[in-house]
Amino acid sequence: MNISKSFIPILKNNPSEAKIKSHQLMLRVGMIKQSSAGIYSWLPLGFKVMKKIEKIVREEQNRIGVQEILMPTIQSSEIWKESGRYEDYGEEMLRIKDRQNREILYGPTNEELVTDIFRSSIKSYKSLPQLLYHIQWKFRDEIRPRFGIMRCREFYMKDAYSFDINDEEAFFSYNKFFLSYLKTFKRLDLKAIPMAADTGPIGGNLSHEFIILAETGESKIFTDKRIFEVDTKDTKLEKKSLDDMRKKFEQYYSVTDEKFNKEEFEKKVSNENRLTTKGIEVGHIFYFGDKYSKPMGASVDLPGGKKDFVKMGSYGIGVSRLVGAIIEAKYDEKNEVMKWPISIAPYDLSIIPMINKNDNAALDKANNIYLELEKNNIEAIIDDTDENFSSKIKKMNLIGAPYQIIIGKQTDGDLLEFKETGKDSQKLKLKDIIKIIIEQKVKN
Amino acid sequence: MNISKSFIPILKNNPSEAKIKSHQLMLRVGMIKQSSAGIYSWLPLGFKVMKKIEKIVREEQNRIGVQEILMPTIQSSEIWKESGRYEDYGEEMLRIKDRQNREILYGPTNEELVTDIFRSSIKSYKSLPQLLYHIQWKFRDEIRPRFGIMRCREFYMKDAYSFDINDEEAFFSYNKFFLSYLKTFKRLDLKAIPMAADTGPIGGNLSHEFIILAETGESKIFTDKRIFEVDTKDTKLEKKSLDDMRKKFEQYYSVTDEKFNKEEFEKKVSNENRLTTKGIEVGHIFYFGDKYSKPMGASVDLPGGKKDFVKMGSYGIGVSRLVGAIIEAKYDEKNEVMKWPISIAPYDLSIIPMINKNDNAALDKANNIYLELEKNNIEAIIDDTDENFSSKIKKMNLIGAPYQIIIGKQTDGDLLEFKETGKDSQKLKLKDIIKIIIEQKVKN
Repeated sequence: MNISKSFIPILKNNPSEAKIKSHQLMLRVGMIKQSSAGIYSWLPLGFKVMKKIEKIVREEQNRIGVQEILMPTIQSSEIWKESGRYEDYGEEMLRIKDRQNREILYGPTNEELVTDIFRSSIKSYKSLPQLLYHIQWKFRDEIRPRFGIMRCREFYMKDAYSFDINDEEAFFSYNKFFLSYLKTFKRLDLKAIPMAADTGPIGGNLSHEFIILAETGESKIFTDKRIFEVDTKDTKLEKKSLDDMRKKFEQYYSVTDEKFNKEEFEKKVSNENRLTTKGIEVGHIFYFGDKYSKPMGASVDLPGGKKDFVKMGSYGIGVSRLVGAIIEAKYDEKNEVMKWPISIAPYDLSIIPMINKNDNAALDKANNIYLELEKNNIEAIIDDTDENFSSKIKKMNLIGAPYQIIIGKQTDGDLLEFKETGKDSQKLKLKDIIKIIIEQKVKN
Repeated sequence: MNISKSFIPILKNNPSEAKIKSHQLMLRVGMIKQSSAGIYSWLPLGFKVMKKIEKIVREEQNRIGVQEILMPTIQSSEIWKESGRYEDYGEEMLRIKDRQNREILYGPTNEELVTDIFRSSIKSYKSLPQLLYHIQWKFRDEIRPRFGIMRCREFYMKDAYSFDINDEEAFFSYNKFFLSYLKTFKRLDLKAIPMAADTGPIGGNLSHEFIILAETGESKIFTDKRIFEVDTKDTKLEKKSLDDMRKKFEQYYSVTDEKFNKEEFEKKVSNENRLTTKGIEVGHIFYFGDKYSKPMGASVDLPGGKKDFVKMGSYGIGVSRLVGAIIEAKYDEKNEVMKWPISIAPYDLSIIPMINKNDNAALDKANNIYLELEKNNIEAIIDDTDENFSSKIKKMNLIGAPYQIIIGKQTDGDLLEFKETGKDSQKLKLKDIIKIIIEQKVKN
């Protein structure tokens, strides 16, 4: 892709309305455009990143056997009245009347709707467990939307729901998602820590947030450093193995300010292991038993002939929010360098030719390199404009392909100037560059 | 995938509320579930088909160089007031007030929003053409939603928009989409005929609908049979070649009842070439010049220093609607046999073992075949229930994987009973079955 033909509207300076670095960068390189308060369009660069995140989230859901469905954005108020949440939810729920004057709403979450789907089809314990997810737009009418897509009104979310016969099976489902979330965030090159959390408007009695560290995070976190060393690579999708994994995490104190207790922190964590910092929530899981199945009458036949309400949990990852969270975690604001993890980068590599008037040699070379990369499934972007060299480098440092090839004075026959974005350059042949990038792609 | 573990809620009989065959089949095999009037959830089987259609639509848009973006579902009323459509649009537009009492709406289409995105970034003819598309949920508040997802309120649509410097370039863009649509529908195994159409609420002076033949179609169509013979395989993405292609279609009379003129039909089409039948609209393209760019002030600098309003077109394909349209075109209602085109089938093949009490031999064989197919990237579904044989066949004929392997009395050592869904069976070795399916997948 040549940058002159792409729709990547870049601003020279940081937009003054943006207060945090993800919002600044996303507006600056044209990843998003605000269309109204707290509502954004995703332009090609932002869209590509979000789609790659979505793909990883989907693959990891499928891997633990969750089936994908798609519920609509607009819901009827009736099911929310059944569960009792219609009145409770408050003004964040976007309430609508249609032309027939029926009360409808833009779904802020889907516990009611998925329970309705479940109860209309599943009647027997023999069909359990059922694990369902969807990835869909949701709306929460925030009173003061801010920080770009980090605290907006319309957002893209993966939410999954589990249905089980009893607590034991339900914890097994819960733990599958627990492990799956750790793997998902790892593939996004994020170190997410699971933390015991409050359940808020979802309800229930067991809940974990997954928090990534970022100085600009919205939550203060208090944790035992040793939690970063917990290793899950040998954990299997089996009850005992998953239980052991959760215990390994839960032996370390690790909470957000909501649950913080100074005395407990100091008692449980020795001075050298204490870490107090900030973080961003990227996932949240809940177990709430029959909180929805009971008022909505979602029951199944048990082996003995009796019936019982199905036990449910829900599991959310903010897909659009992750784009911002990853920028918060990775963007070097001081040097204006973003290097996307290769698993979700909008491009694998940027090609920066120095183009002089009436001399297309560097651009021709760039085009040839592009074709060779394409043959190897490496996605590149060429800066084919006639801007000066330093402004091109600056732009590509913001767009954030993790690798760069610079075609200028340093180019010496077959040897190309190659660098990891933001690092020092080295001279390499194209075939060696391709090898490096393919190795990284396979690993991630 | 074992059917006992999947969320495919199947009804014994046709649901009485469904009047057309796509609606019947989709409810009967649990592809969708109605959540409120004209609003549906997509269950795993329906979701798989829709996603595969979406993928083909996306690939064909990318192939002609359209860039993907994603606009939000909720729009501000302000841009609709700028274009003058806010009052005109009528009650089909779902109008909403948010908690701050601002007028917002659920987008029924996106000409205004995409024009706003364009005008904020593109200032010069040098950045033209720009072709942008998105695939997003839309809402039209139909007064009487019916026929399942064929005439519903919340629907999934691909809409693209072109921006050009003048009419000549704009027609070039228009024709690219014209060809791209023919290719898209062909990959869906549909024969779509382009027909000159009215422009309706989108406006403009050039428009084509793409119609597929189906006896249950909503539009009456009058056409010259020879239009089916027009061949586009040598058409190139070049002005002259695309112009010639459109002329080849336009030489034949072909309209829906909206534009029908009996006298003209009989004059232009000889008796033996006349075809009067019914069809379903699956795509619609429009050219409307500066209808939106002028009131909204979307202009670009021209080469000479003057400015002009950009010339726009829009191009829609109903992605969710296509699921129903394909069923209308392909489902043999009398024999209750659906055979999905392999390019979008929910599964490539179904495995139907005859399972007797205390005898798992057939199921074990089915599982082994499944694993072998999986290695070859062939997606299968096993009916592992203990239902009787004929009810299993009936069920799989409705689910519609295009191929079946039946493991019963006819199974004879290495030779398996294999059939194209709805056709006669033959005895083949697994490796030959795999060869047949892979050949079909590569072709489509």
